Amino acid sequence: MNDQGKHKFRKRSLTVEEFTDGVINGNRAIIAQAITLVESNSPKHFEKAQKLLQRIMPYTGKAIRVGITGVPGAGKSTLIEEFGAMLCVQGNKLAVLAVDPSSSVSRGSILGDKTRMDTLSKHPNAYVRPSPSGGALGGVARKSRETMLICEAAGYNIIFVETVGVGQSEITVRSMVDFFLVLMLTGGGDELQGMKKGIMEIADAIYINKADGTNKQAALNAKAEYNRLLHYLQPATPGWETRAFTISALTGEGVPELWDMITSFEEKMKKSGFFEKRRAGQLADWMDRLIEEELKNRFYQNAYIKETLPEVKRQVTAGETPLARAVQELIQTYQQSDKF
Amino acid sequence: MNDQGKHKFRKRSLTVEEFTDGVINGNRAIIAQAITLVESNSPKHFEKAQKLLQRIMPYTGKAIRVGITGVPGAGKSTLIEEFGAMLCVQGNKLAVLAVDPSSSVSRGSILGDKTRMDTLSKHPNAYVRPSPSGGALGGVARKSRETMLICEAAGYNIIFVETVGVGQSEITVRSMVDFFLVLMLTGGGDELQGMKKGIMEIADAIYINKADGTNKQAALNAKAEYNRLLHYLQPATPGWETRAFTISALTGEGVPELWDMITSFEEKMKKSGFFEKRRAGQLADWMDRLIEEELKNRFYQNAYIKETLPEVKRQVTAGETPLARAVQELIQTYQQSDKF
Repeated sequence: MNDQGKHKFRKRSLTVEEFTDGVINGNRAIIAQAITLVESNSPKHFEKAQKLLQRIMPYTGKAIRVGITGVPGAGKSTLIEEFGAMLCVQGNKLAVLAVDPSSSVSRGSILGDKTRMDTLSKHPNAYVRPSPSGGALGGVARKSRETMLICEAAGYNIIFVETVGVGQSEITVRSMVDFFLVLMLTGGGDELQGMKKGIMEIADAIYINKADGTNKQAALNAKAEYNRLLHYLQPATPGWETRAFTISALTGEGVPELWDMITSFEEKMKKSGFFEKRRAGQLADWMDRLIEEELKNRFYQNAYIKETLPEVKRQVTAGETPLARAVQELIQTYQQSDKF
Repeated sequence: MNDQGKHKFRKRSLTVEEFTDGVINGNRAIIAQAITLVESNSPKHFEKAQKLLQRIMPYTGKAIRVGITGVPGAGKSTLIEEFGAMLCVQGNKLAVLAVDPSSSVSRGSILGDKTRMDTLSKHPNAYVRPSPSGGALGGVARKSRETMLICEAAGYNIIFVETVGVGQSEITVRSMVDFFLVLMLTGGGDELQGMKKGIMEIADAIYINKADGTNKQAALNAKAEYNRLLHYLQPATPGWETRAFTISALTGEGVPELWDMITSFEEKMKKSGFFEKRRAGQLADWMDRLIEEELKNRFYQNAYIKETLPEVKRQVTAGETPLARAVQELIQTYQQSDKF
């Protein structure tokens, strides 16, 4: 992250115009600074970032957005290295972003390890960006979403958004991508039991990774298991049948087929009109979510609320104050407090 | 609902003390009025209702709260009639409430049909209450939750909260009960495919109803299917294995076993401490939800927002204004608007 520190300095001197031109011309250094600007928590940077986003808006939205999740150890980064390298060699421009709310000060537990995606990040057609240190998922998601727009404006035609399949982050990533890929490990019922609730219901494809060597048969069995289970679930994307496949990031087996599937998905969804429909819906939902988050943040960060809430909660739990009234009074006083 | 109209008139003359005494003494007429008071949308009634709830608080929480959901046609009301009658005969006092956001002016599409639960509602030990006409799910849920407390204070030791397995209502009901029962119909994969996403993951037991006559074998097959599927899912209640069973509201077969299971569930959960833990957690979650709902309602009902939001949404969708700034500006202006 040292060179980001550097950018932070150079950044101050860049105007919105310089940012816009740099991004649109695919200047890697300026792209990095633009993303740092978007990720910044300072109000001053926020205004500038929003101006920049407004300028680049016409250049965004042309990439295929692919979400990738999987439990730790599922081999996400190894697959992305292999898959990404193939796409770059084919002449695509690939941006790999991460959404990881657990990444606070450290630059993300997903991509924190510098050695990860080493080959890919060196490729001229690839841009790898770790998860922003946003604290709450909402903050991280907003920044990743805006980073995605910057990368699109910079001419990256494929965006990977990676996340660990823990907590809510995969739901959030699903809400910002066109195609959602779930990476699983081999193993039958026992491992299936450990799977995140509902993860299969948001997947457009499930890939059992590490289908190589002695593990191959187990992978094929797992694939069959998942397909049985998928049969019972409504598909995540109307008009698309979610199925399970095996893949090996190690041998590369199944990797070309993965890309074929994503492109045929894009084709099919654009023809049916659901591609645009989903994106429009995502934007509307996103706006509602931002509004609700902003309302909540302002409430919970309000000095009066911070001071009062614990005692009110105690009273409610102790049955001293009925819930609905406690809430009414809290918000009433909050809205009349100095903050406004 | 005519006699509720009557109550509305008599109600005005009742003091909070009279309400409290009447409820605690199990006076059915006053219970009905108290619930009507809780269900009222007028601010005047709200204050009085909250005072009443505060008074009765010490008498609440002693019942076992059972949520019951199932697709329309699954035979919820027939089962509740049969099951409820058995419990009342055994000397239990049973209150049956409904949560149905779709019930607006009409007194609830679930229990709207007067002939339903005819026998049960006539039993001195049973109290059947249709869904409040609360519009939004939040409103309905709040009222049902408070109605539940009134019934507990009135000495009902078993509370059924019924809902149709559509939309979010079953998640809401799950969040206010100790035990959650999902009623299903016979049929294999095809019907399973139609099941609500995640419904099995919030169930403490799944019952395939109408397991009688020529349908019995199909029910047994469905039971096996569900048990296979449940094997893959994490149980809704830690330390409790969710399983599928067959039952017949018509012949009563399986009904006594259902009650045995619920009581053993209660015993086990109280011993493990999770019973109280879940209730405490439900109360805390409930408070957070009420706060967020109240914040949202006040925002979206604000005159300025109502007037501005559509145009802002259009600008954002058209890419004229970046999302995050649009939201910031909206809320900023909202908080400075006269309303506060």
